[in-house]
Amino acid sequence: MLVGIDLGGTSIKAGLVDREGRILIQSFIDTKVGRDYRLIIKDMIDQIERLVWDYGSCIDDIESIGIGAPGLMNYKSGYAIYCTNLFWNNVPLGVIIEEHFKRPVYIENDATVAGLAESLFGSTRNVSNSVFLTIGTGIGGGIIINNKIYSGSHFAGSEIGHMIVGDNFYRCNCGNNGCLETFASATAMKKYAVERLEKDKIKSNILDKAEGKTDKINAKIIFDAAKEGDLLGTEIVDRMIKYLSIGIINVYNVLDPDMIAIGGGVSKAGDYLIERLKTEVGERIYTPNIKYGDIVLAQLGNEAGMLGAAFLEK
Amino acid sequence: MLVGIDLGGTSIKAGLVDREGRILIQSFIDTKVGRDYRLIIKDMIDQIERLVWDYGSCIDDIESIGIGAPGLMNYKSGYAIYCTNLFWNNVPLGVIIEEHFKRPVYIENDATVAGLAESLFGSTRNVSNSVFLTIGTGIGGGIIINNKIYSGSHFAGSEIGHMIVGDNFYRCNCGNNGCLETFASATAMKKYAVERLEKDKIKSNILDKAEGKTDKINAKIIFDAAKEGDLLGTEIVDRMIKYLSIGIINVYNVLDPDMIAIGGGVSKAGDYLIERLKTEVGERIYTPNIKYGDIVLAQLGNEAGMLGAAFLEK
Repeated sequence: MLVGIDLGGTSIKAGLVDREGRILIQSFIDTKVGRDYRLIIKDMIDQIERLVWDYGSCIDDIESIGIGAPGLMNYKSGYAIYCTNLFWNNVPLGVIIEEHFKRPVYIENDATVAGLAESLFGSTRNVSNSVFLTIGTGIGGGIIINNKIYSGSHFAGSEIGHMIVGDNFYRCNCGNNGCLETFASATAMKKYAVERLEKDKIKSNILDKAEGKTDKINAKIIFDAAKEGDLLGTEIVDRMIKYLSIGIINVYNVLDPDMIAIGGGVSKAGDYLIERLKTEVGERIYTPNIKYGDIVLAQLGNEAGMLGAAFLEK
Repeated sequence: MLVGIDLGGTSIKAGLVDREGRILIQSFIDTKVGRDYRLIIKDMIDQIERLVWDYGSCIDDIESIGIGAPGLMNYKSGYAIYCTNLFWNNVPLGVIIEEHFKRPVYIENDATVAGLAESLFGSTRNVSNSVFLTIGTGIGGGIIINNKIYSGSHFAGSEIGHMIVGDNFYRCNCGNNGCLETFASATAMKKYAVERLEKDKIKSNILDKAEGKTDKINAKIIFDAAKEGDLLGTEIVDRMIKYLSIGIINVYNVLDPDMIAIGGGVSKAGDYLIERLKTEVGERIYTPNIKYGDIVLAQLGNEAGMLGAAFLEK
């Protein structure tokens, strides 16, 4: 049996998983971010112990514990190098949990483990080189090369959301201007909507759908407005598709994977998103002499992170 | 003995190389681009035969023939998929030469083979993951992962010059707007100089240095003007450094290599270029918790292509 944990800024999902990728039991707790990291890690340890207990099992039955977390993870040392959302710098996440349980503990970036899960059991299971993009409040990336995670020489690769692709009207959390996630994430769509509504005084159904409150605007509202022909909704979706296509073209021109899978909240726009992306990407490919990697929806949804984490190994 | 060939848009360099990377003999011929590809390939065959003859050797002594060419190369089929500069689409480059000599023939992208040479004998020889950028009329890229060439699933990866990084005032040859090479190549610097001189009527020593003729402007003239404090020269170099830094940041955030080596004509700006790049890149890194890959000058100069080509293998 394997333990997989998806450590997020809002909640922590943990599950027991068998070798075939079946989730045997799972639980959720609040992260309560902002606390001392030791308290959060203590909660994770308690969560694992309860999970094993509830399943009627014991820690000796656990082969390994894998953790996907939002940021750069040194899987060799067990240290979380940098997690913006958790306000963590060089936190001994894996070290503490390994010391407690005396079992192998592996840590990795959350988008990367979701990409691993998709490559083992989901959308990209039939290919060896794939890129997973999760599009929600930010954009995360996972790179699989030759069926293995590729995270670079310093665990800092696959941060595809931080590729710089243009000039934008606001800065990214990372300090740069022009990161892909400031153009093509749900946050980017919302920020652009507010900018156009408040600064440029554009009229749109988006505000009605959000009950007149800009802070209630989200990607779904904007997609719905666009589908109904709302001009601002269409503009925002077009802009998001344009930049996400540029991001995919950059992935083609650097990594040229067999397949690109799109997950995360924004992927709920479904086939509409994929078809629009394929059209726009098709107009920007370097040469038609090649059939570039297919763009598909991810298949595993919210469980991808926990599942992929469980299958981490040295 | 190995044969290495660097097939360029202007000239074809061929050499006999030993297993230690020593060039035993070499020759240059004009490509005379625009001719039927069969004539160009025939010239390459003649060139190889003459080289072997001149060295007092025979074809049976040749282990393999490697060719670096400007474009996407299917090393499995031996077909050159797409070469803009040669106007080639799906040309059986490797097939014809292999049929003629009955020796193994390997083809690969020219920047990629130069990157391979640097990783075997040059600037990046002590690391396993490296990216080579050659900056001249365009920007070519070579990716080495685990000491092996990485060219993607369809031989279309490592086209780092075609990463889209902004909006530009002219389109790239590839059809897109905003490719890295339209901001940071020698061509980009020249085009921007002409735009500012002719359209914006900026006064600058650049025009004097080019004997009053805009078509004589080149990267060296612009760097020299910048070093002398010329305002337009400084602006052009600053812009080039800014975008090349963005390109490097994107390489960091996707591939996170051990090292990035800069070659090609623009790299003649030397330590000045590298120091400026390091400063600008340092201000854009995702987190200071990591020591990202060092940025260095390539070491093998013009011979890198021929040398790397010789060491291609299946």
